[in-house]
Parts: sequence; structure tokens; C-alpha cells
Amino acid sequence: MKIGVLGGGQLARMIALAGIPLDCSFVVLDPSDTACAAAAATQIKGDYDDPQALAELARQVDVVTYEFENVPQASARLLAQSVPVYPAADVLHVAQDRLNEKNLFTQLGIETPPYAPVNSLSELERAAATIGLPAVLKTRTQGYDGKGQAVIRSQDQLAQAWTAIGEVPAILEGFIRFEREVSMVAVRNLAGEIRYYPLSENHHDAGILRIARAQPGDAMTEQAQSYTEKLLSHFNYVGVIAVEFFQRGDQLLANEFAPRVHNSGHWTMEGAECSQFENHVRAVADLPLGSTEALSCAAMVNIIGDLPSAADVLAVEHAHAHFYGKSARPGRKVAHVGIRAPSVAAREAAIEQTLTLAGAHF
Amino acid sequence: MKIGVLGGGQLARMIALAGIPLDCSFVVLDPSDTACAAAAATQIKGDYDDPQALAELARQVDVVTYEFENVPQASARLLAQSVPVYPAADVLHVAQDRLNEKNLFTQLGIETPPYAPVNSLSELERAAATIGLPAVLKTRTQGYDGKGQAVIRSQDQLAQAWTAIGEVPAILEGFIRFEREVSMVAVRNLAGEIRYYPLSENHHDAGILRIARAQPGDAMTEQAQSYTEKLLSHFNYVGVIAVEFFQRGDQLLANEFAPRVHNSGHWTMEGAECSQFENHVRAVADLPLGSTEALSCAAMVNIIGDLPSAADVLAVEHAHAHFYGKSARPGRKVAHVGIRAPSVAAREAAIEQTLTLAGAHF
Repeated sequence: MKIGVLGGGQLARMIALAGIPLDCSFVVLDPSDTACAAAAATQIKGDYDDPQALAELARQVDVVTYEFENVPQASARLLAQSVPVYPAADVLHVAQDRLNEKNLFTQLGIETPPYAPVNSLSELERAAATIGLPAVLKTRTQGYDGKGQAVIRSQDQLAQAWTAIGEVPAILEGFIRFEREVSMVAVRNLAGEIRYYPLSENHHDAGILRIARAQPGDAMTEQAQSYTEKLLSHFNYVGVIAVEFFQRGDQLLANEFAPRVHNSGHWTMEGAECSQFENHVRAVADLPLGSTEALSCAAMVNIIGDLPSAADVLAVEHAHAHFYGKSARPGRKVAHVGIRAPSVAAREAAIEQTLTLAGAHF
Repeated sequence: MKIGVLGGGQLARMIALAGIPLDCSFVVLDPSDTACAAAAATQIKGDYDDPQALAELARQVDVVTYEFENVPQASARLLAQSVPVYPAADVLHVAQDRLNEKNLFTQLGIETPPYAPVNSLSELERAAATIGLPAVLKTRTQGYDGKGQAVIRSQDQLAQAWTAIGEVPAILEGFIRFEREVSMVAVRNLAGEIRYYPLSENHHDAGILRIARAQPGDAMTEQAQSYTEKLLSHFNYVGVIAVEFFQRGDQLLANEFAPRVHNSGHWTMEGAECSQFENHVRAVADLPLGSTEALSCAAMVNIIGDLPSAADVLAVEHAHAHFYGKSARPGRKVAHVGIRAPSVAAREAAIEQTLTLAGAHF
């Protein structure tokens, strides 16, 4: 089976590495000269909206998927005329726009933080009055890793925030005092079967995910699964999805979802029977889904900015290195460390050592 | 780190898939149009004794290793003039010749079945008288998977056996009535540190390995480690080695060793903390070695000859598919199934189901 991937970054790279042993081969479409997925895939170099490149991709593969949700919807629809695209293009319409996303959550009965659309400074003032402060102003599109966001703590910051995000269509979200952030990574196949990984508990650093810990048996599992199932069924979804939640008391509030393999699920590479990458391939290639059960005590630490040496990383007991073949750059995810340890204490020690390493290079 | 591999078959492919996440890239030298390692490596197409191809390989990489022991020794020595070659070329001199191999075992105090060199029919007759029958006549070089061998059960089969193996330099080995065959896969790094995987218990079918089961805590572990350590230290070895033993009573008799990753260690991909492929990369790239501890109950089943579908393989509970990207051909290893199960019973059930699948296509 030949699988096309829109995007040739580390997610496509890890999808290909997981899929090659399943008798799949990969073609990535990416405009970059240094697409790191090319280590395990053929690259078509082209823009995501280049009709010729898209036609070439469709010609070469049996099915198309993507590694990021900002794929042009028109491109996904064009491809879908000649080859199956999973998840379907309809998902992008929602996933690319925070307002559509929150509206769908609400429509499906999935709790969210309070929110309101903002298209002007005066709308922002009205929204702030309704929702209350502090609150977060977020662009409807293109935001990731904390970009395109402004926290508003007092009335006199409203105009400044509106300017800061570029005066573009946005939503204002109530600043939730949550106890923690968790995410549910799940996979659904063509037949409608769904498998859920254990919840991930996520910790951020300057808006970027830093640590994800697998939490098998977490008390919030059932609520997270129920919400995720609503989304998957709504879209008749095929592939891996990740849904991020804030937890307040015994309630989960959906923050956003990603229609793809997700950084908070990287721990599944060593920490689950079958990784999110392999299960994504299995789903889009219409192969039986693999077990999502956790193995021992798993976690993931992101390496951001500068690169520690592989020797330093591998000297940490229970650490598994995943370099992305990317050059160092401030704020850039260049690698992650998967941890699979026999006890929580051993896992925490490995996380601590990895953070020290990563911090020294941050 | 750029790693060159002599040979571009499934072993090189699995080495590359394991090494890419460690920030390594791979160049394989292989004469074939369909080298299956090319899915995860750059291929230099050329013969193993082509000086230009070897020079190009040496120019492109930091270190060279190999996936099969029949690499021309002259090529390994030529490469070693400009780039480190691990395991060193001296190992090939022994590993390529059954007589040298058995003589080294004897020199190091490693027990072997009785054996004698055979260079003529009259030598064969004398050897048979000394060793006794039944016995096995094996070519000194080039034999693998049961090829280049003839079993001799009575005096009147001597001439026929000598003809059958092509009247080439050979050794006669006493036909040992062993209880089982086990192999020790181990890894040694540049600093001399050695890590041993749990023993594998191996079952063959028509001379080709069919099933390998991980046997952590096996009673023969200490003896196998001690023998393997002698070999590794003798060669000042760097990389993964596999040593095959026959067990008779509480005694191990060394059959042969392979200076490379080995089919009987494939179960380590899911079944050990760090696989033999990753540990081989770590050793030749001078990175810290990974843990060789077993995870739950592991085994490997070879898929030989015809190809079952990925869907059929993945429908087996606890099965992990490793297709090699090779076309089907009688007697050819085209894939293997890794099994990691929570109990011996579950492992055996998975082996049984996989054999049924594989048998249906054999």
C-alpha cells in the first residue's frame, strides 16, 4: 500500500518509520528542501496548493493523509476526487478554525470553557463583559504552540491584545483555572471501530508541550472517551485524533482537537502495545487496529531549541531517543525522548534527567 | 552520524529503521535493483568487491558495518584503510570458514561437537571412522540456511555426500543428538562493555529458522554468556554477535556464530527494552548501549516463501508485522512476526495462529 502524506516533518517521518514494516511505502508532499520525513519516504517537492504536485501525489499513492491540520481544504478536496483522503476534508473545516471547533463541541454536548466570537475591538469589549477577565484572545486560524494568543487580565489590555493578534477574526475564551491539562488520543477505522489510548497528562513550557505522561486508569478516562467518541462518530472519522481537555474539578472542558497524530501521544512509541503512528497507518490502510494498552510507566519529554547529543540522551536509563533530523533553532521541536520505566519513581527520575539535559540546551 | 552497510537486505533495512531516530543516516552498498533497505537508506548500487563503489561508500560515511558475513575480506580491509569497520575484518576470516570457526572455539575452550577437516574422499572416510556416524558434511564456506550440507548415516553414503557438496573443502561434524538449539545474541561496544540478551530457543523447519522464543532466566544462560564473552574479547569485538549452541544435557556445544544482527534476535524488536538492531547501531556509532532486558513473553515467527496479507497477520492478537518489502519466492524469508504477549499461553496461541497463516502460504 502506498500512502501519501501532506507535510514532510517529524510526524510524517514517524508515520513512515512505523508503516514501512507493515508493507507500506510513503510519498510526502512538502515544499521544504530539508523535509525530515524524506529519510524514510519519497518526497514530492511542492507547495500544498500546487495543482501539479497534488496531481502527482494522487497518481503515485493509494490513500492520502496529513500531518498537520492547516492543509488547504481545497487541496484535500481536490485529492479526494481521485484518491481516499483520511481524515476527510470536512474535518479540516472545523479543525482549522477555533470558532467552528468550539461551536461543534457545543453542538455535540462537549463542555468547553466559555467563549465568544470577536471580529472587532467593540465585539471584544462586549465579549469581555460577558465572559469576564482574565480571558484569552485567540486568532480563529493558524495559531499553534501558543502563537496567535494574548492573555487579557484587565480592561485596559483589550485594545493592546486586539492589536497583538493582528486584528483578525478571533475568539475570546474564559481563562479557566484548571487543575491540569489532559489529552485523549484515539483511533477509528473505516468500519467504525474505535480504540482509545490511556489519557496523557500534559505540561507546557512557554506555550509548548514539554512533558506528557501516560495515565492508565485515570479517573477522567470515561468522560474523555465519551467526548472523543462524539467527535469521531460525527465525522465518520478515519485515523488518529487527539482531543485536548482542561480538567476543573471532575469536569473536562474541551480546548481543541488535532485531526492527526499528536505530540501528546508520542509516548505510545515505546509506551503502548501499538503506537499512535502505527495505528494511524493501520486505520488509513484499512488494516486491523492494534492494541492501545500501555506498557509499564511511560512518558515523553520534548527537546526544544538546541540539540543535546544522542550519547547524552541515551545515557539516561529508560530513555529512547527520537531525533527528527532537524537543525537546532530557538523554540523548535527537534527531538523527543520516550521513557518506558518499570515504576513511576524510575519514570520520574528519567524525566528529571532528561529535562536537565534539555534545559542545558534550551 | 552516517553509517555504511555492506548489504541492503532486510537486516540492513531493520538496522536503518532503528538508527534513523538516533540521528543516524544510512548508505547501503548492494548490487541488487531491489535492495529492500533502500526504503530507509541511500543505496550505492555496486558489487561488494567493486573498488569504485567501496571508495564512494567510504567517502560518504563515518563508519561501516555489514549485514552478512560473506562480505569479501579484501573489501572490508580496503574500507578499513579510510573508515572504521565494525565488526573488524579479522572476524570475517573466522566467520566465513567453518573450520576456522570450530578451531577458534576449541582454542578458546568453547565446547563443540566433534569435527574434522575434509579435503578429499579419503579424508572423509578417515574422519567418519574417527567421529562416527551419523555425521554432517558441511562446506567450509558459503553455507547458510541448511545449504551446502549433507547428512551421512551410513558408510555407503560417503561418496554421494562428497559429490553432493561439490567436492570442496569441508568439515565433517558429529551428528549431535541435542535436546534443543539456543542462541545468545549479545552486543559489545568500543569501551569493551558487553550486554547479553536472554537466550533464544530456536526451532527450524527444513533447515531454516522458523520460531525463536525468548527464554529469560534460562538455566543455560551463564554458560552461553561465558562462551560468548570469550569470543567477543578475543576479537575486541564491536557490534552485535549471535552464537548458536546445541544443548546436550547441561552442556552447550557451539555450532557457529554470526558477526551481525541475527534472525534469532528479531524478537528483541518488541520483546526487549532496546532491540538488537538499535544496539548494533549504538555500538558501531559509539553511543551508550541500551538495556537488553526482555519485556513480557516474546517470540518471533518467520514468514517464508509466500506472503500472507498484512491484514491477516495483524488480526493475530499480540502480533507485530515486519514485512521486508521483498517479493515471494519459495524458501525466501519475506517477513517475520514479532510477538509480545502477557503470558506464555498467550504467546503460544499467537505463535500457533501465525504458523497457520504462514503455513497456508508456505
